[in-house]
Amino acid sequence: MQNEASAWFTEHVSGTLAQQFGVESILYRGKSRFQTVEIFETLAFGKMLVLDGKVQSSEKDEFIYHEALVHPAMVTHPNPERVFIAGGGEGATLREVLVHRTVKKATMVDIDEEVIRLCRELLPSFHQGSFDDSRAEVFYVDALKYLKETEEKFDVVILDLPDPVEGGPAYLLYTQNFYRLLKSRLKEEGVLCLQSGSTCIGMSQVFTAVNHTLGTVFAKVFPYETDVPAFGGAWGFSLASEALDPLQLTPQEIDQRISTRCRQPLRFYDGLTHQGLFCLPKHIREELNREKRVITENEPILV
Amino acid sequence: MQNEASAWFTEHVSGTLAQQFGVESILYRGKSRFQTVEIFETLAFGKMLVLDGKVQSSEKDEFIYHEALVHPAMVTHPNPERVFIAGGGEGATLREVLVHRTVKKATMVDIDEEVIRLCRELLPSFHQGSFDDSRAEVFYVDALKYLKETEEKFDVVILDLPDPVEGGPAYLLYTQNFYRLLKSRLKEEGVLCLQSGSTCIGMSQVFTAVNHTLGTVFAKVFPYETDVPAFGGAWGFSLASEALDPLQLTPQEIDQRISTRCRQPLRFYDGLTHQGLFCLPKHIREELNREKRVITENEPILV
Amino acid sequence: MQNEASAWFTEHVSGTLAQQFGVESILYRGKSRFQTVEIFETLAFGKMLVLDGKVQSSEKDEFIYHEALVHPAMVTHPNPERVFIAGGGEGATLREVLVHRTVKKATMVDIDEEVIRLCRELLPSFHQGSFDDSRAEVFYVDALKYLKETEEKFDVVILDLPDPVEGGPAYLLYTQNFYRLLKSRLKEEGVLCLQSGSTCIGMSQVFTAVNHTLGTVFAKVFPYETDVPAFGGAWGFSLASEALDPLQLTPQEIDQRISTRCRQPLRFYDGLTHQGLFCLPKHIREELNREKRVITENEPILV
Amino acid sequence: MQNEASAWFTEHVSGTLAQQFGVESILYRGKSRFQTVEIFETLAFGKMLVLDGKVQSSEKDEFIYHEALVHPAMVTHPNPERVFIAGGGEGATLREVLVHRTVKKATMVDIDEEVIRLCRELLPSFHQGSFDDSRAEVFYVDALKYLKETEEKFDVVILDLPDPVEGGPAYLLYTQNFYRLLKSRLKEEGVLCLQSGSTCIGMSQVFTAVNHTLGTVFAKVFPYETDVPAFGGAWGFSLASEALDPLQLTPQEIDQRISTRCRQPLRFYDGLTHQGLFCLPKHIREELNREKRVITENEPILV
Repeated sequence: MQNEASAWFTEHVSGTLAQQFGVESILYRGKSRFQTVEIFETLAFGKMLVLDGKVQSSEKDEFIYHEALVHPAMVTHPNPERVFIAGGGEGATLREVLVHRTVKKATMVDIDEEVIRLCRELLPSFHQGSFDDSRAEVFYVDALKYLKETEEKFDVVILDLPDPVEGGPAYLLYTQNFYRLLKSRLKEEGVLCLQSGSTCIGMSQVFTAVNHTLGTVFAKVFPYETDVPAFGGAWGFSLASEALDPLQLTPQEIDQRISTRCRQPLRFYDGLTHQGLFCLPKHIREELNREKRVITENEPILV
Repeated sequence: MQNEASAWFTEHVSGTLAQQFGVESILYRGKSRFQTVEIFETLAFGKMLVLDGKVQSSEKDEFIYHEALVHPAMVTHPNPERVFIAGGGEGATLREVLVHRTVKKATMVDIDEEVIRLCRELLPSFHQGSFDDSRAEVFYVDALKYLKETEEKFDVVILDLPDPVEGGPAYLLYTQNFYRLLKSRLKEEGVLCLQSGSTCIGMSQVFTAVNHTLGTVFAKVFPYETDVPAFGGAWGFSLASEALDPLQLTPQEIDQRISTRCRQPLRFYDGLTHQGLFCLPKHIREELNREKRVITENEPILV
Repeated sequence: MQNEASAWFTEHVSGTLAQQFGVESILYRGKSRFQTVEIFETLAFGKMLVLDGKVQSSEKDEFIYHEALVHPAMVTHPNPERVFIAGGGEGATLREVLVHRTVKKATMVDIDEEVIRLCRELLPSFHQGSFDDSRAEVFYVDALKYLKETEEKFDVVILDLPDPVEGGPAYLLYTQNFYRLLKSRLKEEGVLCLQSGSTCIGMSQVFTAVNHTLGTVFAKVFPYETDVPAFGGAWGFSLASEALDPLQLTPQEIDQRISTRCRQPLRFYDGLTHQGLFCLPKHIREELNREKRVITENEPILV
Repeated sequence: MQNEASAWFTEHVSGTLAQQFGVESILYRGKSRFQTVEIFETLAFGKMLVLDGKVQSSEKDEFIYHEALVHPAMVTHPNPERVFIAGGGEGATLREVLVHRTVKKATMVDIDEEVIRLCRELLPSFHQGSFDDSRAEVFYVDALKYLKETEEKFDVVILDLPDPVEGGPAYLLYTQNFYRLLKSRLKEEGVLCLQSGSTCIGMSQVFTAVNHTLGTVFAKVFPYETDVPAFGGAWGFSLASEALDPLQLTPQEIDQRISTRCRQPLRFYDGLTHQGLFCLPKHIREELNREKRVITENEPILV
């Protein structure tokens, strides 16, 4: 096969597995206060945001990741008006939230102002102006601190965080205590959703531990997955709630809610996609059943 | 992230995208009459068969690929007794076919005797003795030639072929005429299934063209996908039939058929997995709908 | 060792050996009429020109390559006034030639105007304004054609050509007939010099064949080498003449000529360097002695 | 260029520069008490020993490295009978020492018995039986400790040590105090020689600091270099003595000593090679002149 690229970005998925993206140009390379930041123009996936060496999202398939993260929770909720987002520096999670006409206010909290500044400037197709929507507000503080201090309650809380890397900004947001705090900030019919790591065989330790830990806090936890090509395979998400169950909705009801509530058509998500997301293969369900680990500050999980 | 490997095998997924596997040892490196053959012991996926530089299957996740390829068709068929396999040199497709007690005879045809010899010797966990099952027979000829000459008809035909690479042994088995030949070799309730290439965004040209071409030959075509980690993402399959529809079976009916017919439990496939396989995300369904290409000998498809 | 780069340019030195340069930014990536052109800002070597995937020169060590190419011939000649350069798109060979106050006119002929345009714009530290020197003239034609048509004779002819790559612009300039043409364009005391490929063990086929072929045309041929770090090792050059012998000059005479003739101090080349250049290790001398190949248009040499 | 390899070993020369070797097979991969050990069969260089990820020597060009390390000192000495080697686990330094008929006893001290065991078994072309020579003795202890305790004095001491890597076994053998100890263990006409790191531009910190440090201990220090292809470029060595000067010997005298003393012809080293080794390019001489660093235990040098 003829190589069309001569400069490559290599992402070490683990110590024994990597993926390589042919690079057209390097749009940014630097360090923020919290992490290394790179923005590449890749040949296969277009623009790509990389934090601490890990792919966060790519122009070509970020719609899969962000729709999979946001819409199952938003659509499951009967009337999501008040939404909280932790992380999500690209502004694309915010963008998907704001697609819902029901939303009155979306609060986004991301500790890394520099990343958001770079994304606003260099990744316009990701945020599509969402930061300027009158319903949006953005704070550059630690999400943990913000949530401890606020008295507000939310319909939907979305965690769009980088993987829990040692020394990185996010690992304390992958703990039982943080999930307890989130539960206390949700309204009665509130829904929490989050990305929860790879579901690929041999790499699903974060996914299973996060879901098990959520299960010690929430009445109902619904792990789901879809393939995110720029992440190199299947990626896991979790939806948790005290009251609501996404599996109670038929594909038709979901399509109905989308067409009623959303300001524009979606590309990845609809009723049939929703149904597929929650049908995990047998071996993943068994891995989830076997997991006993509860993530705490004292025994954090690190990739 | 600390590298645990210092020797790496790089698979060029396309001219702009690659994946790298840390290698523990190189079990074989050579050329057969038809293709280059490599067998690596990788750190992330165990033993791995590579033909013409492309990953065929890995010890750790081949069960996903082979169960996804074989069981939807086998279970959809009411009583699969006579099975034909084209390709599948590892013997793992044959292994999964023979799990079904209904099978009286499975005929496997693979042009590359050398590959099969190497797999029998070096990949015992893949074939698990299937080549020695009294119900199995193996011929080292071109599948096209074999099927033209045989007068037998089959309940299930399985194509487990390498990608259509220029100059490779398989590209003529990705054509409308070959699918017509297969249809003529199927019994009335017969089912065809095959791997049909990546479904990852930007790389699904083979997948959509194969499914569209199948649709010009068969009354019903059912594309499906699952994530195969060693392939670096979501992989597509197709099930085609004149009479049968896998979507008519409930998860419960599928679980029932598995427990009645199969000699041992499956790891990946069950009723819920089956349901998820056929729920393609919206954008993939739309790509399939847009596809108009019919693959012929004169206009073959090549990756 | 901690990687400081995440995007890398890989140069395949051969089918079994490569070197990788961490990339800070990609300054240019395109195709001229004749070759692919890339200009990288690398972390180890600064700006780097790459043609058809092969490193041509780097900001940090191009002084080694260009001084080693130009000065042994220029200094060996008693009074070099008229100089011809084939190739050398960066303008650095021209720069080194013009350092010599004796030079009245330097004619540079490079087929690829686009490469020169890019170098003038993006690699100012390489040419340092040499293109604008009143003694310089540049023609964008084939050197073979130019030399056939000109009636001028030169004191020094310098070949600064890319490796003879199949389909590339230079391989016909690596032949006995071209060397005959060059001889006819040299004055009686004229000197030819050229880069002649790697001298690394197992990769010196071009080097030995070029020197042997030169030996069928010129009375005296002097192969020499030095390490060019960006080329990944020792690199070979050749000096050929009917009359002059660089080994007749003592280090002191060389230092004297440099200080008399050169407008500025040199960084790599002086009398002691000159002496070392021509002291090839024993095994390389033996490889040269064993070589019998004469390069012709019908049997060209290709890397 | 067609890749002939699909598995590659990558050596990170620095954080911004790497070289890659196509691998035919992996002969060994493990950890000794002191370092990681890998032995590859590479396509370009044959068998290759790698310690802590750094290439130590390769089958195809180790004769360059070992002859360049050993013979300048051995030939400079009028009658080397008693030789001490620190490191040199492959046994090839010992082999070159024993080529000299003058040698009565060669003592080799290498801390890593496991590496020597592996080299004896897997790299026979490197040691060529030298460990079994009746004039050789090998001790598996720390060279520093051995030399402190011995009362013997030597004609030639050779340091064939891995680079000073943090936490590695060798960095204390790159200090002023160790050089003082060596001086006290040399006879009056004794000669010390050692490999002293890359001389490539931007990577010569060890080379210049070692030579400067030697200069604070010995009356005369002679840095030299040659290209070692498997090391990716020019490599530096040092010869130090209180009494002897390798530059006093003419090429003819050197050739005479070789033919008188050596049991077999050499491949790399002869009188002309010797002359070239010590003719460092001007910029390297200037780097050496600028260096002021003295390496001590408190301020060790680390690559």
